[in-house]
Formats: sequence, structure tokens, C-alpha cells
Amino acid sequence: MAAERLVVIGGDAAGMSAASQARRLKGPGELDIVAFERGRFTSYSACGVPYWVGGDVEGPDALIARTPEEHRERSIDLRMRTEVTGIDVAGQRVRALDRDSGEAYWTDFDKLVIATGARPVRPELPGIDAAGVHGVQTLDDGQALLETLERTTGRRAVVVGAGYIGVEMAEAMLRRGYEVTVVNRGAQPMATLDPDMGRLVHEAMDGMGITTVNGASVTRILTGPDGRVSAVATADATYPADVVVLGIGVEPETGLARAAGLPTGPSGGLLTDLSMRVRGHHNIWAGGDCVEVLDLVAGRTRHIALGTHANKHGQVIGANAGGGYGTFPGVVGTAVSKVCDLEIGRTGLREKDAAAVGLRYVTATIESTGRAGYYPGARPMTVKMIAEYRTGRLLGVQIVGREGAAKRVDVAAVALTAGMTVEAMTALDLGYAPPFSPVWDPVLVAARKAVTEVRKAGSA
Amino acid sequence: MAAERLVVIGGDAAGMSAASQARRLKGPGELDIVAFERGRFTSYSACGVPYWVGGDVEGPDALIARTPEEHRERSIDLRMRTEVTGIDVAGQRVRALDRDSGEAYWTDFDKLVIATGARPVRPELPGIDAAGVHGVQTLDDGQALLETLERTTGRRAVVVGAGYIGVEMAEAMLRRGYEVTVVNRGAQPMATLDPDMGRLVHEAMDGMGITTVNGASVTRILTGPDGRVSAVATADATYPADVVVLGIGVEPETGLARAAGLPTGPSGGLLTDLSMRVRGHHNIWAGGDCVEVLDLVAGRTRHIALGTHANKHGQVIGANAGGGYGTFPGVVGTAVSKVCDLEIGRTGLREKDAAAVGLRYVTATIESTGRAGYYPGARPMTVKMIAEYRTGRLLGVQIVGREGAAKRVDVAAVALTAGMTVEAMTALDLGYAPPFSPVWDPVLVAARKAVTEVRKAGSA
Repeated sequence: MAAERLVVIGGDAAGMSAASQARRLKGPGELDIVAFERGRFTSYSACGVPYWVGGDVEGPDALIARTPEEHRERSIDLRMRTEVTGIDVAGQRVRALDRDSGEAYWTDFDKLVIATGARPVRPELPGIDAAGVHGVQTLDDGQALLETLERTTGRRAVVVGAGYIGVEMAEAMLRRGYEVTVVNRGAQPMATLDPDMGRLVHEAMDGMGITTVNGASVTRILTGPDGRVSAVATADATYPADVVVLGIGVEPETGLARAAGLPTGPSGGLLTDLSMRVRGHHNIWAGGDCVEVLDLVAGRTRHIALGTHANKHGQVIGANAGGGYGTFPGVVGTAVSKVCDLEIGRTGLREKDAAAVGLRYVTATIESTGRAGYYPGARPMTVKMIAEYRTGRLLGVQIVGREGAAKRVDVAAVALTAGMTVEAMTALDLGYAPPFSPVWDPVLVAARKAVTEVRKAGSA
Repeated sequence: MAAERLVVIGGDAAGMSAASQARRLKGPGELDIVAFERGRFTSYSACGVPYWVGGDVEGPDALIARTPEEHRERSIDLRMRTEVTGIDVAGQRVRALDRDSGEAYWTDFDKLVIATGARPVRPELPGIDAAGVHGVQTLDDGQALLETLERTTGRRAVVVGAGYIGVEMAEAMLRRGYEVTVVNRGAQPMATLDPDMGRLVHEAMDGMGITTVNGASVTRILTGPDGRVSAVATADATYPADVVVLGIGVEPETGLARAAGLPTGPSGGLLTDLSMRVRGHHNIWAGGDCVEVLDLVAGRTRHIALGTHANKHGQVIGANAGGGYGTFPGVVGTAVSKVCDLEIGRTGLREKDAAAVGLRYVTATIESTGRAGYYPGARPMTVKMIAEYRTGRLLGVQIVGREGAAKRVDVAAVALTAGMTVEAMTALDLGYAPPFSPVWDPVLVAARKAVTEVRKAGSA
């Protein structure tokens, strides 16, 4: 009997984790694995690019978890700079284009993994393609930006967008010695937080010398006589710029899958079942930044591009495609980030998310410190907790503060997964010692206040 | 109608939290609150004493959360340096002794809170009362030790015991410039860890220049011609000492309660129900270091002296004694500590705890880092996970490492509380960004390995 063939489209976290996991379960005699990657790198940490640009990390090699050669040593037929241009679902084959030789060919599959990732949102603005305007989603992007920085003598950087990538790039450019202006469409930076918590980020960025302009949509990128970027314009103002970084976010790269008739959700991401199989297709899986994931708190699918999810998807897909068993139950929406020494963590629903899915809620916001107040280095943190009206079920937590703030949301992430009430959370046995926490951990303080708010609202 | 009277024995965390919470619910017209404290301080952080001695914290005022005067401003009749010497349960009264005036008197109660705390284990050793031998459980202890250090010219310190207080005091004495020897009865430091994890602590302490002698019981304290301590002797050796710190742990202070016929458990701590009422007594509550708590994983009671539990107990007792409602469901045994930059976290059962309560288990130990491997400051951590045979239910986690190691056990503490399996844990949506975690958080890596071990054991 001939070996089955598993074809993988996309050589980054989800795709190559799937390939590796499938290979662990089935040897080359049982399973051929062919993986296509249109770029020059495999299995790298895109999340590390801001730290490479900022000079904290030596790149790009340090950001590569596994090279093409390492994958090939595991008997994976990895074809680099080869783009899949079509999927023939009924015929069980994909069409590939070798970007160097120009050769195009069909490859049959028994099982298919779609891991085409996401592409940066790149608004159709006049001047967007000018020299000196850079995205930061890929290693190539990072390299190109660093080359621009080497050649640029001016010190004014404009970062467009104030989400995770935007604020991380603001830090990176600040560390490179630039005068940084962040142009942000939203009312506050970090739209993944409620505005009251986003305001704390804004204030902290101010304190670091980063100028943040909120409520400002870019209308055009201006260029100088040399064709290079010279400024970023909004309806109201013009911000001189020697370099522009686009940190506007990403959208699922699913043109290929949609052209093949595969189902996508409201965000344009592929829809899968709990085993990461594309809905309605027993032999096609999808994972990573090209899929929508089930938000366990909201009860609906969302698009979240995050390396940690992509790796988990890859493991699950590889287990299933390799004849084993695995499922991905969904996410609760945890994310952490930092801007210099400001830490930001969030999990679960924001107020507007809760309202959007029909949940009535109460909120509680408290201030505490990451260590016992008397212990050196105790720095403030603000914790906001959102709980369901009447039931008191935890719906979300947002934390903004200094050391120890970001990863404290993990406690809430587990509590959300377990469906805990804020009342149950007040009794959680969290680690206490003066260097690590006040005697009441900030999350517990927030839970106690949330209990009070739930009671007040319930009796009103 | 006359106001009811609530009597509180013990003016530290549990007792004064209970008094304060009861006062919030009932004003002075409804409830008299009389609190007795035999010492000179109220509501202070005993956990902070090692950091005060080490010079990190200005003491003792910084360690006092609320002074006697502040309690009195809240209409609590707080009687300092007044020891309760007897409880007449049937007669609903306590006998008190004013330690300054020598006056003794009875006080009636409608409701009673016993928060008598714990006392340091002080072995009956020759020389134990010599000058230069110090415990570190109270503010008075800390003050006395600091006075000794000021007068002592020699630089050799012996710490007896290698549990939390022992290792924290080893750090404190090292920071004070002492040559530190820790004399430890156990096979490894930190007996709250399994020996394989304790060994990592030993190795790290070695690297800091702290000498740890394991398997060594102190037989006597030697004194010089001036009557001051000169050395600590074990069966095998003698360790010269200019100062000796006892860090041997504590036991519940329940002589008074036992004399009154109140029920205690195997560790000598008072036994309560879920509302912290002393079993069989509708109007007597107990909390803090003098009670046993339900270990939710082991399914039996234990004695754990920890300020964070005492504060929670106080809240629950105060709610109930004040006519409200609260319960303390139990603990999972979370504790965190550090020795210089080494962090230690643990929660749930050790191997021997699991065996002792009839659980069969598997273990998985992994090494990872607290940040993405390529991110500056990424330091190693070792995570050990214990899971139930067949069911795969999480039983315990121990973490030893550097920055970010200790508080990572909180994730496991919540998972234990929720009764999660290690398989469910592999899907947890924990915060990921390179400064805070590898793409697979170390706890998830351990969970994945534990899943493999559960499967292997189940199919064997």
C-alpha cells in the first residue's frame, strides 16, 4: 500500500507544528508530508520582530525556531518559496508555483492542512508604498525596516495604530532613539481594552515621551522630492516623519480557501470544528492566523492572530492528521503586552463585547500593587473585572500596571475557562509572599469588589 | 435591647479582619466588639520580618497594616497587652489578664472569635535560650535580632531550618554580610517540595554562597564564656556561629481552646466548618494560624500558617459574626518564596502527599524559560507536575527557577480548584508575548508532558 500524502500550505507555526506532530505519529513509510511555504523562512516568531527592531534581540536567526533544513531532517518535503495558487477540493490536489523557477504543478493530497496565516491590513492610502513606510509582520519586514533605519538620519517616527503591534513598535522606535508619534484611530490606545483602561496606557505612554494622537485616521502619506516619506497626514493635522511603521493589525489570509469554496466566518477566517477540521470536510484541517476560533466566553467565533494559538492548532491538527486525537476547545481571549515598563494584560470580554452578545454585567476597578506595599519595587497596578449580572460569573479582566501586571491575567484566564463566579474567585489560593504579592492578590481584591457590585446590582 | 457583644482573642490578621468586617456590617449600637491582644502590635505582616532583617524594608512601622489607634477609631474596644487566660464556653465568657497592671477579669460574650495564631517550634535544646539565638516570627523577634546584629562583630550566622522562613532568613543574613550556614534536618531544603525539586534549591543556594547542611539535626547550642552563642552542634559536626536564627516553623497556638474543650485536628489546629465556626459551636468562630484548613486536593484538613489565609478567614468570620454570610471552601496548598533571585512556587500535593491519601499518580518534569528563549533576561525554570493515574486530574505543581517562576503556580492553583485534568490544561489560553513567556508557557509544556505520562501509565 502506498503511503498517504499530507499536504501542508504554509510553513510557519501552525503548518509546521502540524507537520512535525504528524511525523511523530507516522513515519515516512506510512505518511508522505509535503509542505509549501511561499516565503524564505519557516517556524519563526513574528511576535519577536518589535524586539529585534528595538535592539533587544539579535535577529533574524534568534527568531527562527526551526529552519527549513531542520524540518527536512525530519523527513518533511518542505518546498520553500513555493506558493500554492489553487486548491482542488474534489480532486484532492493543490496547484503550486515555484517563485524562483516559475514552474507550476499540481500535487495530490489525501489530507490537507491550510495554514496560510494572516496578512497585514494595508489601507489604500496615497503614499502608502513610499520608501520609509514599513509593516512589521514578517522577518522580511523587520529586515527592511532595520535597513531603512540605518540609512535614515532624521529621528522622527510615526507609528500608525495603537494596538499590540503599534505600542510595541512605539517602544522599539523609542529605544532606537526616535521621537515617536502614534497616530491612533480609536478613542484610546489598546482597543482590546475598555477605554477607561486604555486611558491608563495613554497616560503611561505620555510619561515615556511617546506622543499619542487619538481619534485620528490617516488620510495620506506625504513624500518628499526624493520620493521618501516625509509626513503622515490626518484630516486635522500633519505629522512629520522620517520613517513610518504600520501597526494596524492583520486579517485572515483566506483568498485561496474561499476560492476553493471552503467556509469562512464573519471575520473572513476559516471555520473549523473542535478537531480543527474545516467544517464539512473530513480530510482538510486549518489552523493558525487563517481561522476563526471559538470564544468560550462570548459563545461565538472570532479572529485572533496569535502565535500561541497557532502552535496549539498545529499540535491538534498534527495529532488528528497523524491518526491520533486532539481537540482545540477555544479561547478566552487572553493577551499580554508591554510598552517599556508598562505591562498590559487582558482576558475575556470587554464591556462592549459583553453587551454585544446579550450579557448584562457589572464592573469593578481597583488599584493595588504587584508586591506587598512595603516591599521595594512595589508598583501600582489597576485591575478591572467584569462579571455577569445576577450569576456573578466572571466575564473578563483587564490589568494595566508595572512589574507583575500582565501575566496576572492568567489566573483570570483559567477562572474563565472553568466558568468560575467572582465569589468563588475571592477564595482562590493564590501564592502570597511580600516580594510577589500583597496579602490580598490584586486579582482577589478586584474579585471582592466585583462580588459587592454583583450584589448591589442584583438587589437594585 | 442591649447590643450583642463580640469578643475577639488575638489582634493580628484573622482577628482584626474579623473585627473590622463585623464592624462594617453592624454599627456600635448593635454590636460591641472587644478584642484582646497580648502583644504590643496589631495587624502586622510577620511575612515581612525576613525582609526587614535583610534591610530591604524599613521596619517595624512599614509592616503594620493597622495600628491599635486605627482599630479603636472604628469603635473596636481593643485591649493591648491583655492576654486571655481562659474560655468558659458554657458561661459565654473569657478571662483576661492585663499584663501591665496584673489585673484579671471576666468578660461576657455573645459571639467569640478565636484567632490565637501559631507559636514558633522551639526545640528543647541545651543552649536554646542563649543570647544571640533568635526566632523571627514576630515584630519583637525582628527587633531583638536586629539589635543583636548591631552588637555582633562576628560574621558567621547559622540558620536552623530550611523551610520558607529558613531560606528567607538565609537570604536576609547574606544581605547583611554574613557567612551563612543553613542546618537542615531534611534530605533537601524546602521540604514542601519533592526532594528532586528541593535539590534544585540546594544547588542554587550553593551558587549564592550559602552553605546548606542536609540531614542534620541540631543537638545543642554551644555558648562562649560570655554566655552568648558560639556554635551550633549536630551529631556529626559543630558550626561556629555569632548569631543563630531559628526558622523551624510554627504550630497552632490552641492550648486555651483545647483547655476549653474545643475540637482540634491531627495537627493540633482548631476544626471549623465551612463558615469558620468551631465545629459544634454555633457562636464561636476560629481562623488564621490556629485552625486547620481543608486541603481540597487531599480531602483532609492540614495546618498552614499563612497570612493570606488568615486574612480570608477574618473576612469570612466577620461577615458571619456581623450577620452576613461567607464561607471559606479550603485551600490547595499554594506557597511562593524566594532566595535572592531564585523563585520557588508550589501548589497541591507532593508525591508523598498523594500516596498518603491513596492517590496513584504520574509525574512530569520539564525545563523551560520565563520569557521567550531569545528575549533578554530569559532564565531557566523547572516545572514538575503531578497528575492522577488514569483520570489525569491535576494533583500538584512545583516550580523552581528565576524571574517569573514563583507566581506561575497560580495558574495551577486555579486549575486545581476547578478540578481540571492536565489534558484540559494543555488548551489553557495563557498570556503570550516574548517578554513574558515562551510561545508555550512552561506550565503548558509540563501539562503536555503530563498528558503523555498519564497515557503511558494507563496503557501499561
